[in-house]
Amino acid sequence: MSELRHDPVKKKWSVIATERSRRPHDFTLEKCEVEPQRESSNCPFCYGNEDKTPNEVFALRKGNERNKPDWYTRVIPNKYPAFRIEGELERSGKGLYDEVSGVGAHEVIIDTPEHSLSLSGYDRKTMYNLFLTFRERIRDLTNDTRFRCIMPFKNHRIGFGSAIGHPHSQVIALPVLPHILKTKLNSARMHYRNKERCLFCDIIEEEQREAKRLVYENQDFLAFCPYASSFPFELHVYPKRHRHNFAGTNESELHGLADIMSELFGRLDRVLQDPQLNFVIHTAPPLTNRPGKPDYWHSIKQDFHWHIEIAPRLTSIAGFEWGTGFHINPVRPEDCAGYLREAAER
Amino acid sequence: MSELRHDPVKKKWSVIATERSRRPHDFTLEKCEVEPQRESSNCPFCYGNEDKTPNEVFALRKGNERNKPDWYTRVIPNKYPAFRIEGELERSGKGLYDEVSGVGAHEVIIDTPEHSLSLSGYDRKTMYNLFLTFRERIRDLTNDTRFRCIMPFKNHRIGFGSAIGHPHSQVIALPVLPHILKTKLNSARMHYRNKERCLFCDIIEEEQREAKRLVYENQDFLAFCPYASSFPFELHVYPKRHRHNFAGTNESELHGLADIMSELFGRLDRVLQDPQLNFVIHTAPPLTNRPGKPDYWHSIKQDFHWHIEIAPRLTSIAGFEWGTGFHINPVRPEDCAGYLREAAER
Repeated sequence: MSELRHDPVKKKWSVIATERSRRPHDFTLEKCEVEPQRESSNCPFCYGNEDKTPNEVFALRKGNERNKPDWYTRVIPNKYPAFRIEGELERSGKGLYDEVSGVGAHEVIIDTPEHSLSLSGYDRKTMYNLFLTFRERIRDLTNDTRFRCIMPFKNHRIGFGSAIGHPHSQVIALPVLPHILKTKLNSARMHYRNKERCLFCDIIEEEQREAKRLVYENQDFLAFCPYASSFPFELHVYPKRHRHNFAGTNESELHGLADIMSELFGRLDRVLQDPQLNFVIHTAPPLTNRPGKPDYWHSIKQDFHWHIEIAPRLTSIAGFEWGTGFHINPVRPEDCAGYLREAAER
Repeated sequence: MSELRHDPVKKKWSVIATERSRRPHDFTLEKCEVEPQRESSNCPFCYGNEDKTPNEVFALRKGNERNKPDWYTRVIPNKYPAFRIEGELERSGKGLYDEVSGVGAHEVIIDTPEHSLSLSGYDRKTMYNLFLTFRERIRDLTNDTRFRCIMPFKNHRIGFGSAIGHPHSQVIALPVLPHILKTKLNSARMHYRNKERCLFCDIIEEEQREAKRLVYENQDFLAFCPYASSFPFELHVYPKRHRHNFAGTNESELHGLADIMSELFGRLDRVLQDPQLNFVIHTAPPLTNRPGKPDYWHSIKQDFHWHIEIAPRLTSIAGFEWGTGFHINPVRPEDCAGYLREAAER
């Protein structure tokens, strides 16, 4: 099983994922990142090859029979998981250090049966199905009281030579609260305590007033290039109404989300020619069965506001970023927003 | 001038470096990272081409005349700086957000006149000169009371096509304290308050007792793979005696540092065939002219312990890392230390 190890100086966790264990020689083979390609006929994520993957844990499909080739999206356990659902959750001290066993979930979502569909080519229905699947997985994983964080994300065109090219996303559930989410929760809490207003709702107002970083909005969602963007063409997507948890998103809002995400990926493709990118959904941690302080956790409903971060990978991360945690971004977010507004399909 | 912009949710700074400004098209050209190569005869960092760079701010050299080809190391301002020494340091509110003007220093250190010298090929004298140059730059930049952090670092074989291949390092000075350094200072402070012991000195004791993550040590320095390594073959180098500031390193210690760094880069080369890597020196912030709380800053001398982090770049950073701040490391630090111990030259 993996180990979550805590750094007593940096106050952050690392995952020592022994299931993916490699020898030094493996790294020297992998120095050049390549676009993952694989014949569709051999692809374990294509129709007809359902038996080449672990059994599915969820699917949106036409019929009722599991592991049959009639699905729209399909969720399977990761074959080389960083976290496993089985096993005891143990928290232990190791001399000066701290360890938590790698209990959690690590699932792969096959976004679509179409092997060669590009992210910017997803139609509204495909995008809707993907986010509906994220919502259903969050709802299900929330029932497991061991988990402190559930996070859906996608790596688009990022990965080593062995990665599968068929469009897919991931969901992880973790037994500890990651420090990035903890910082966000604390920022939101302090803002609410001082002002009795949601920090994220305030950001929506500020961005609408300033307007120069706005990219697109519809009835339910707003997309903008954040003021302190770490990367060129970074995009944040906020629900306009205050909602702490993505799991509470209703059908109508899911359609709005499919609309805005399709629109943004289309524009990123037109401006940057299908860039490598990640996106991550930041949603409130499960509020059930938290140790102590029920009020503390309960207040997350008013403090926090779920959102999506989209980060195109156009610049390299090197010593400066590693040493300071700052990113150097060579393009003003206001300029990026301008390019992306101009990229609306006419 | 660049802008330092603060993210009110993530509580971190981004540098919007307009001097490096690029248009979307520039990124699509740069998708494939390549090994920087350039003819030595055109190289602005080679002997005889001193007039192709900005005037040097420091050099270790045989003679006394500046910008002449008799140097061992040479320090010049970065031609496309993320921070500039000239200009007013302004701290301003921008609606909901915060901005600090990009006043600082961004210097390039040419490590050696030898255009094609590899990092693992630096002899002890070259390595000594590099770290002596770092020390002198920190001492000089500390006199500028605008700076809250001075950080030397190196990107080895990392960069885009336009990067210069001639061996060089960098030093930056910043008008704000980066959150990674702030977290380290706070961890060290809390540890000292609770135990009246230095956290880093305790880690040295723990690593020496456990021994399984040790890689190399000499009279003055200890190198080990940290317990919660973010990356395969990550290495930390600590001075064995408590020292808060790298600027206080004496000649004899600099020789010890040259020895351990040469040894580590040699072993990394033998195990991983000259991997891409960064290293960063984390040293205490300048303690002069700090606003308020003199005791707070003074206690850094007992709390903090300067150190070096070496991070080979063998794995890719993607959505999971971006969303959580966790890194997934597929090799146990104990195994990495074993490989590196075996790689001692016989």
